Amino acid sequence: MEEGRQINVGVLGATGTVGQRFVTLLSAHPWFVIHKLGASPRSAGKTYREACSWKQATAMPAGVKGMVVQECKAEHFADCAIVFSGLDADAAGDIETAFRAAELAVFSNAKNYRRDPNVPLIVPFVNPGHLAIIPQQQALHSPPLHKGFIVTNANCSTTGIVIPLAALERAFGPLELLLVTTMQAISGAGYPGVSSLDILDNIVPHIGGEEEKIEWETLKILGGLTETETEGGGGLKAFDMHARHPLRVSAACNRVPVIDGHTECVSVRFARRPPPSPQQVREALAAFTPDAKALGCPSAPRYTITVHEEPDRPQPRLDRGYQDGAGVSVGRVRQCPVLDIKFVVLSNNVSIGAATSSIINAELAVLKGVVPA
Amino acid sequence: MEEGRQINVGVLGATGTVGQRFVTLLSAHPWFVIHKLGASPRSAGKTYREACSWKQATAMPAGVKGMVVQECKAEHFADCAIVFSGLDADAAGDIETAFRAAELAVFSNAKNYRRDPNVPLIVPFVNPGHLAIIPQQQALHSPPLHKGFIVTNANCSTTGIVIPLAALERAFGPLELLLVTTMQAISGAGYPGVSSLDILDNIVPHIGGEEEKIEWETLKILGGLTETETEGGGGLKAFDMHARHPLRVSAACNRVPVIDGHTECVSVRFARRPPPSPQQVREALAAFTPDAKALGCPSAPRYTITVHEEPDRPQPRLDRGYQDGAGVSVGRVRQCPVLDIKFVVLSNNVSIGAATSSIINAELAVLKGVVPA
Amino acid sequence: MEEGRQINVGVLGATGTVGQRFVTLLSAHPWFVIHKLGASPRSAGKTYREACSWKQATAMPAGVKGMVVQECKAEHFADCAIVFSGLDADAAGDIETAFRAAELAVFSNAKNYRRDPNVPLIVPFVNPGHLAIIPQQQALHSPPLHKGFIVTNANCSTTGIVIPLAALERAFGPLELLLVTTMQAISGAGYPGVSSLDILDNIVPHIGGEEEKIEWETLKILGGLTETETEGGGGLKAFDMHARHPLRVSAACNRVPVIDGHTECVSVRFARRPPPSPQQVREALAAFTPDAKALGCPSAPRYTITVHEEPDRPQPRLDRGYQDGAGVSVGRVRQCPVLDIKFVVLSNNVSIGAATSSIINAELAVLKGVVPA
Amino acid sequence: MEEGRQINVGVLGATGTVGQRFVTLLSAHPWFVIHKLGASPRSAGKTYREACSWKQATAMPAGVKGMVVQECKAEHFADCAIVFSGLDADAAGDIETAFRAAELAVFSNAKNYRRDPNVPLIVPFVNPGHLAIIPQQQALHSPPLHKGFIVTNANCSTTGIVIPLAALERAFGPLELLLVTTMQAISGAGYPGVSSLDILDNIVPHIGGEEEKIEWETLKILGGLTETETEGGGGLKAFDMHARHPLRVSAACNRVPVIDGHTECVSVRFARRPPPSPQQVREALAAFTPDAKALGCPSAPRYTITVHEEPDRPQPRLDRGYQDGAGVSVGRVRQCPVLDIKFVVLSNNVSIGAATSSIINAELAVLKGVVPA
Repeated sequence: MEEGRQINVGVLGATGTVGQRFVTLLSAHPWFVIHKLGASPRSAGKTYREACSWKQATAMPAGVKGMVVQECKAEHFADCAIVFSGLDADAAGDIETAFRAAELAVFSNAKNYRRDPNVPLIVPFVNPGHLAIIPQQQALHSPPLHKGFIVTNANCSTTGIVIPLAALERAFGPLELLLVTTMQAISGAGYPGVSSLDILDNIVPHIGGEEEKIEWETLKILGGLTETETEGGGGLKAFDMHARHPLRVSAACNRVPVIDGHTECVSVRFARRPPPSPQQVREALAAFTPDAKALGCPSAPRYTITVHEEPDRPQPRLDRGYQDGAGVSVGRVRQCPVLDIKFVVLSNNVSIGAATSSIINAELAVLKGVVPA
Repeated sequence: MEEGRQINVGVLGATGTVGQRFVTLLSAHPWFVIHKLGASPRSAGKTYREACSWKQATAMPAGVKGMVVQECKAEHFADCAIVFSGLDADAAGDIETAFRAAELAVFSNAKNYRRDPNVPLIVPFVNPGHLAIIPQQQALHSPPLHKGFIVTNANCSTTGIVIPLAALERAFGPLELLLVTTMQAISGAGYPGVSSLDILDNIVPHIGGEEEKIEWETLKILGGLTETETEGGGGLKAFDMHARHPLRVSAACNRVPVIDGHTECVSVRFARRPPPSPQQVREALAAFTPDAKALGCPSAPRYTITVHEEPDRPQPRLDRGYQDGAGVSVGRVRQCPVLDIKFVVLSNNVSIGAATSSIINAELAVLKGVVPA
Repeated sequence: MEEGRQINVGVLGATGTVGQRFVTLLSAHPWFVIHKLGASPRSAGKTYREACSWKQATAMPAGVKGMVVQECKAEHFADCAIVFSGLDADAAGDIETAFRAAELAVFSNAKNYRRDPNVPLIVPFVNPGHLAIIPQQQALHSPPLHKGFIVTNANCSTTGIVIPLAALERAFGPLELLLVTTMQAISGAGYPGVSSLDILDNIVPHIGGEEEKIEWETLKILGGLTETETEGGGGLKAFDMHARHPLRVSAACNRVPVIDGHTECVSVRFARRPPPSPQQVREALAAFTPDAKALGCPSAPRYTITVHEEPDRPQPRLDRGYQDGAGVSVGRVRQCPVLDIKFVVLSNNVSIGAATSSIINAELAVLKGVVPA
Repeated sequence: MEEGRQINVGVLGATGTVGQRFVTLLSAHPWFVIHKLGASPRSAGKTYREACSWKQATAMPAGVKGMVVQECKAEHFADCAIVFSGLDADAAGDIETAFRAAELAVFSNAKNYRRDPNVPLIVPFVNPGHLAIIPQQQALHSPPLHKGFIVTNANCSTTGIVIPLAALERAFGPLELLLVTTMQAISGAGYPGVSSLDILDNIVPHIGGEEEKIEWETLKILGGLTETETEGGGGLKAFDMHARHPLRVSAACNRVPVIDGHTECVSVRFARRPPPSPQQVREALAAFTPDAKALGCPSAPRYTITVHEEPDRPQPRLDRGYQDGAGVSVGRVRQCPVLDIKFVVLSNNVSIGAATSSIINAELAVLKGVVPA
């Protein structure tokens, strides 16, 4: 990446919860420059300051206050090299398709295309290699695309756990069983999202579709990208869903009265016997260095996984802001009497669990030449 | 139980969190009459109203306001047929021993004697048969006792899960694996207990000693009471710790910003194959009728286990007050991709998880003649 | 009121927050029998159990579960002697007018007709005498009405303070200045109401229209009902808005993370000099006996105003449930260095602040013969 | 202040809540270098990392982790030009006296000496002129001091309001009446401080001694420092407590479930008639430039008073972190029907309400030559 080069980017759904986080992070980004902001027709034509009910604990960046919000139509974003989508699922489907068809590179936080067999579902510290499916995604489009594509990042609760799990698989071989119970922050539901009457002095032991997402996305992310020879000679790439080493995943998801930061209690069983000791697990987690770090992604945190030794950490209020929420925290690594090892993961659902992942994915795409710098 | 017969009872630790709950419940009890209140020397001599910083959401019962608080010495409680102990662990050990030695029947919520091989650890809807160890407890005392004994109830987080687990074992045979993640209310830590700075907008993923308690107590409660012939002819009773069908238990405990009500996400594997279906589990839970109900314990709730069909229940704020917290709620019964079945349990930690359990244990002891009515 | 006589009542907006509270209270009422439940067309035709997302901490009363919800059309409620309205303001206007025109007696919690010069705004322990405007309300209708009318109760934050203020005016003469700062519970905004992201670990120092309501309603409620001779001979009744002794009211309203119970810090100045002492104020508050009590309204609490001596009471969590929320609590009565006296009021906004007020108003109307028993 | 000059400072009570905030702020300070950390004998001899249960949402600064904590004895701090005290009131009295006697300059957040007639009580944007009492404080000491003195800052709830009040007095002349209702964060009570059982879903309408502090400190801070000729010729300085224009202050203090940030609803009456309009007040607040800013105190924020135009701001969660909590926010400036003007103030109680005030006071003392640079 040439020094000082700047890349114009757009943000879709810019007035929403995830959009505001994109705007906050991108305003301080060394490469990316916010060039266009998109939102619903109701907001279009207003300045961002007028259109947006700003709910971040930091002030609205000065540079975006006066920007005029656009409708989410591709023609308004034609001069953006990258478009970040913080759209809600009900709007994201059609808009992201249209943007891709208009040869725009879309990095989406929405769930709509995560299960698409030609769309990579990338957690930046885990499976950037899945970007290799993009040429196939473009080739299968009608007409074939040259620059347009969609990359999705994972659900926030999936992201938090697959990062340490990837570190464990790299060190100790494939996992066989995974049982996770989540305690998820209210910001994960957007704004207005969770009614205060539902969550103050309360737990809601259900988040619609969340358990299925964790159980499915984990397999796509941790699994490989395989290539089968086709008759015509060209190989067909496919996500193998961890099929060579079947992994069974069980999730129980809860909403808790925490503003930001998902806490997840994880138990795992390894295929390899004997399994690693808690101390070996701690060391492997702390030593984990993802490609995003090695390649020099500017938004990759210094410490990808922070391993806590104190018995009562990580805690969302104390640890979610560390490194601006770009890493994950793991604590209480100990033996599990039922599976092998259990531990607690904390991830910042609005940072690495959402906008930060999309941004590092885009940084990876730039560094790997998938998006021209 | 003869109509209208009244039994004098005492409450130790009466000014504390559990003690206040004992006082509230006993003030409306059809059999038990609060006769003596015991607390620390600092409180002794004051009226209960003066000594007690009342923190219940219901008013202090009129009948106890003017009662003079006693020191926790057995001579002050000599005319109590039953003594309930809500003492903290640091005081409970010596005091409860002294009360037993003074031929008093002690029903304790403290943890001190739960692991004693001659003290029953009773969850009233699960293992009232363990009262049968009491003669041995008395006989082994020096000098042998005639009326004095200690019965403990379980830790609040254990109590919540063993009730549905007992129902499942009764219907489907022994369990083999149990994995539980708890989200526990602040009232479980007493008063002042958890600092607000530690729990507002936060989760603390650790409660000292709690996981060990769940992993150990569950075995004592769900396991049998076996008798081995001794040389002298008399059988020696012992708790078998679920040894005939080894059960492995793994617990992960969290403190959450909820006032009352422990929520627990449970996954289980049965020994018998194939395991029951979720619908069979729901039916077995709803049909469960414990001895406490059959025998007519007045504090046993109408519905021991309430099975929720709504996808987002039970919730502590909405469900903890049902039947004054004397039953437990189970919801989200579904298949577990890793073990067999998973579900969510809610129990009121200050009611069935503490004082209500002790009271029903005492009712059982009266009905079974262990305590003379 | 004849022993055992039963009065059929309907509830409008029955599936909403206030409606659920009406249903809970009326299900246990000695006179009133829930005969019809009304809600939006979307709910009509369903059973109450199906139509309603029940959010009360007590279970849905058995008697209403199977009742079929009606559209809010007067013909469905023709055989109801009384109709309670928990409708939202956007629906209440037209529906309540139509019900009145159909000769139904409407007791409304909605704000729409509170400022109507012929509709009484009644806080049951304060100004039941304002029911005397009803014949004029009926006579001015076109065509004149025989049985139909609308009675409103006050805004929840107004209700809490006018009860002790009425007690003070009765004892010490008119007030001259009133300054109140409120800390209002989230349930006051209905469901879903306040977003959890807006109120967890936060205060919102603004509630739309609330300060104006307190500043205006207080005058209508505490003021008299005057009669001026008209040319034709009949007197014309009018609310005097405390005009004979002008009262200036200043309110500052805040939303706080409390589920139920409005806390209000009040300072007042009396017209009469010297003003009463704090002790005289405490005694007058505790001695206050409203007409609703004297007349025998079954929902009137035993203690209308509970005066707390402890320095840190009342508190919403501990005191809002006392007498099922039908009274108000006052504490910290002390001198105000700027005005005369200051104190803290706690009222249960969903009970005396809403449904309970409407119900006692209806009881008063029955006892005074305004509604035939 | 010479470029690059560094001043060694010590922190007393360094492991406590305020102490941790001192350590966080001083670690990034351009002039002050943490040279010594003092705490209780229990902590002395341990490294700061070992001694301190770190509760800040930012990581412990690397530079202090290995520092050895000292007992709070003056001899250990002899080479500190400035000592900041975050001691609790029960320890602060004797220790601060001893440090002053040892010729150390103490800037204290404790309440012990705030009422001392020779100790200035300084809110840095309000009354830095009160530093002029220091020579008298030193001269009256026995033996007279050359360098040692004590400067206190105000109680957190006082600090928040006197800053805008000082701006108003500067623009519109003296105030006559002040009525304030506070909603104070739990961090104001230190750690463990407020029990979670007392504040979750609750308000506590009482904070011991707080109302008296506001009512008294406001007068000392906003009042002048007068000098009376004494017989011997030397003038005697005294705080006039706003005596030339008597100001009556009434405070009502509440604890609310907010982590950081005190919200205060203020009503004021001016002596000058007619009073300013809300718009004039807004302009005067926004334009206020304190000496600390003019003199170049490095910790003075860019905007001393941020005036919000949105109707629902300031809010603690959204606004307390602005400028790292060094300014105050004012919103909802409007007419008060009882006094003249009412508005809402938000101040960060752990920043400008505590440690930040002490630090800016010390900066002022350096810039004015009271402490040698």
